[in-house]
Amino acid sequence: MTLSTRIADFSSTLTVAQLPDDVRAAAGMHALDTVGCGVAAVGLGEADFVQHAAEESHAPGSSSAIGSSLPMSAEDAALVGGVRCHALDYDDTHAAAVTHVSTAVVPAALAAAEEIGASGADVLAALVAGSEVSIRVGTAGAGEFHDRGFHPTGVVGIFGATVAAARVHGLSARMTAHALGLAGSMAGGVLEFLSDGSQTKPLHAGWAARAALSAVRMARHGATGPATVLEGSRGFYATYLHGVDTDATGEIADLGERWETPRIAYKPYAACHFTHAPVDALAALVRREGLGAEDVESIVVYAEPTGVPVVLEPAADKLTPRTAYDAKFSLPYCLAHQLVHGGLPVASFTAPAIADPAVLAITPRVSYEERRYSDRPGSFGGGVRVSLTDGRVLEHELQHQRGGTEFPMTDDEVRAKYRDNASLGLGEEQVDTLDRLLTGLAEAPDLSSYAVVREARPRVEARV
Amino acid sequence: MTLSTRIADFSSTLTVAQLPDDVRAAAGMHALDTVGCGVAAVGLGEADFVQHAAEESHAPGSSSAIGSSLPMSAEDAALVGGVRCHALDYDDTHAAAVTHVSTAVVPAALAAAEEIGASGADVLAALVAGSEVSIRVGTAGAGEFHDRGFHPTGVVGIFGATVAAARVHGLSARMTAHALGLAGSMAGGVLEFLSDGSQTKPLHAGWAARAALSAVRMARHGATGPATVLEGSRGFYATYLHGVDTDATGEIADLGERWETPRIAYKPYAACHFTHAPVDALAALVRREGLGAEDVESIVVYAEPTGVPVVLEPAADKLTPRTAYDAKFSLPYCLAHQLVHGGLPVASFTAPAIADPAVLAITPRVSYEERRYSDRPGSFGGGVRVSLTDGRVLEHELQHQRGGTEFPMTDDEVRAKYRDNASLGLGEEQVDTLDRLLTGLAEAPDLSSYAVVREARPRVEARV
Repeated sequence: MTLSTRIADFSSTLTVAQLPDDVRAAAGMHALDTVGCGVAAVGLGEADFVQHAAEESHAPGSSSAIGSSLPMSAEDAALVGGVRCHALDYDDTHAAAVTHVSTAVVPAALAAAEEIGASGADVLAALVAGSEVSIRVGTAGAGEFHDRGFHPTGVVGIFGATVAAARVHGLSARMTAHALGLAGSMAGGVLEFLSDGSQTKPLHAGWAARAALSAVRMARHGATGPATVLEGSRGFYATYLHGVDTDATGEIADLGERWETPRIAYKPYAACHFTHAPVDALAALVRREGLGAEDVESIVVYAEPTGVPVVLEPAADKLTPRTAYDAKFSLPYCLAHQLVHGGLPVASFTAPAIADPAVLAITPRVSYEERRYSDRPGSFGGGVRVSLTDGRVLEHELQHQRGGTEFPMTDDEVRAKYRDNASLGLGEEQVDTLDRLLTGLAEAPDLSSYAVVREARPRVEARV
Repeated sequence: MTLSTRIADFSSTLTVAQLPDDVRAAAGMHALDTVGCGVAAVGLGEADFVQHAAEESHAPGSSSAIGSSLPMSAEDAALVGGVRCHALDYDDTHAAAVTHVSTAVVPAALAAAEEIGASGADVLAALVAGSEVSIRVGTAGAGEFHDRGFHPTGVVGIFGATVAAARVHGLSARMTAHALGLAGSMAGGVLEFLSDGSQTKPLHAGWAARAALSAVRMARHGATGPATVLEGSRGFYATYLHGVDTDATGEIADLGERWETPRIAYKPYAACHFTHAPVDALAALVRREGLGAEDVESIVVYAEPTGVPVVLEPAADKLTPRTAYDAKFSLPYCLAHQLVHGGLPVASFTAPAIADPAVLAITPRVSYEERRYSDRPGSFGGGVRVSLTDGRVLEHELQHQRGGTEFPMTDDEVRAKYRDNASLGLGEEQVDTLDRLLTGLAEAPDLSSYAVVREARPRVEARV
């Protein structure tokens, strides 16, 4: 038995009945969160290129590309969906796998389900199977992919997306393993975009989802792939992580016993992880004390040393973000926006928002001190000390940021995030429809109501 | 200036007028050879999965997928074409780049041209630009990709295919560089299929061609990619060849001055390179002496030591190939077929052909001795010593196999190979039409006559 045949045995037979309640619930909430991020990207006009390209040329089909009124093939819808869902970098992450899990798995599973009219229960099983596989494949090479310059969201995500699509199609274990073998020759995504801020990052999620569906379609028509695609001497780890001592056997062995899907972390803010804990610490003080922006004299951030050059220095640049993307990496901006507007929704990171004089009046009042919090991967502690105009000094710290396993977001918080996001592109009724569908997948006879995502449009009036 | 901007400056402005005569002629002959291989694959039913998948789901368009009557988008046609053209492993190779060049570049360029009605002259410039780029990008990492387990035909081929498609579209240098940046996040293809003979190898060519056209379409709609996609610290060489000291600067610098397209080698036989020189040596003796199979008592092959375990041992297995693929790696079979039938066309490697009792009666008469020929990469010398029933012993050796730069195939030989191949799937008139078009690209107003490849079908009567 090879790793891919072990994966295929697990995924091809997984049913909703086998899922613990928390796993089942988490899969639905992550689908909701992911789709919300995609709708928000449409609302804010992020990564429009993918929709324009797909509208110029796409295969006809019955799958929904978030934001496009044209029904498309599963492949095309998954490409558009994957790119949109990752475009704001607001989607979920598994800390140990260092991978944005759902942005490849969810669009692939939903697009496949719309193609064949699959039931919600099959989709739910597929989402869990795909998420578990992306996480295990990623965790086995944790950190190493980034060190090599590969983006796991793409190169790892294709395996989970393939498993999810294969499960939706009800492929046999044998055919699923072939699809995984084909997928191993279609894995791509490098981090070089970091050098100049070009747009390949969201493409990685969409391309993984699209390639996964191509692999499944070709496998269904008899194409074969190597059974040792993961562990072989010219397989995935040997090639993408050449020279690294990687063994995925343990990660794959307990599929179906240990469940990682509930450990996928949500992002409460569409900003760098280093900003989250200080923003939440400030929000807690403001809420507790009933403060307004006018009550605050100055803010000292408590920041991990590793975060300082990312979100606090060079200090002068951080006071006035030049672009919406810059603002995601400015703690002074994030804190000021939170203080002035009482929140930091995704629409805080737009050209009009970052020019708000009320916010920019506050950023010069932010300074920082270094502190150390947890060393756990994926944990980003932080805090604030706030001096008030009445002379009081208040302090609040969080050992871990919100959204991860140590400090989970509640279902209500995830739903509120979803509603904020989805409202940027859809009306209230459509927002409700998607919520009902995705958090009620186990009972949904099919995914026909998912087609409301085709109605997502930029809704300027919905922005901050 | 980065490597990709240098490439883009070269390719986006290249015209037929700038091409030396031999370069222009070579590009046309390689297109002919490549398409012939693709038609032969249709004729022999190789890699049918890709056509079945595309016929189930494809974007409508005006491009031709070899063997399918359905006009498709450039992306879909390029996928089908790339897979078919590489399916028999009979297509061309550049020795120093260790890359099957044309199987990704040609389908991408032709599909793009059909989409927009480009002229033959633009296609010819695009073919040369794409081939030169694949060769340079591959040569800079020569041998290393294979050592790592990556298949350059896929991971290198995407860059040439992208350049070719961008040139057909007349993209600006800036947009071409963005397309290359996007392509760097879509490069895939590992050699793990070698472990069990599964079918991912031809997929690498097709996926590279398809991804190239996606990259171009997205770039046309405003997507951006990193300018340092090749040389960056998280770029192509740093990731796919981590730790290897690779510098493509020299290879890229003299684009437009040194031309490598005429150095791409043809394969005279759809069999392993180690079989070619002995087969041609035998053919030369047979022709010179007017021999028949009944005149031959025994054959001793002169073989490079590195070739022995590939095409001569285990000796018992090589006498009776179990599959058509096995036969490509059996020198006894190849020599016996050449002797009995006076040739070794691609249809020699089919289930009926390998069961021919007249051929299998000869294979036990073949033994071997080791000899050393040229160490030059891509050179495979060899010979035969033939003992005749009349007591004579004849000998012939080739220092280099036919088809490469040291012992080139003539245009007549390449055309004869094309006609043998194309006749497996097309009628004589269609074979002529493609010949006229592809060897006369410089004068072709458009590629409308290329649509005859849609008529390619398995033609059993045409087989040996």
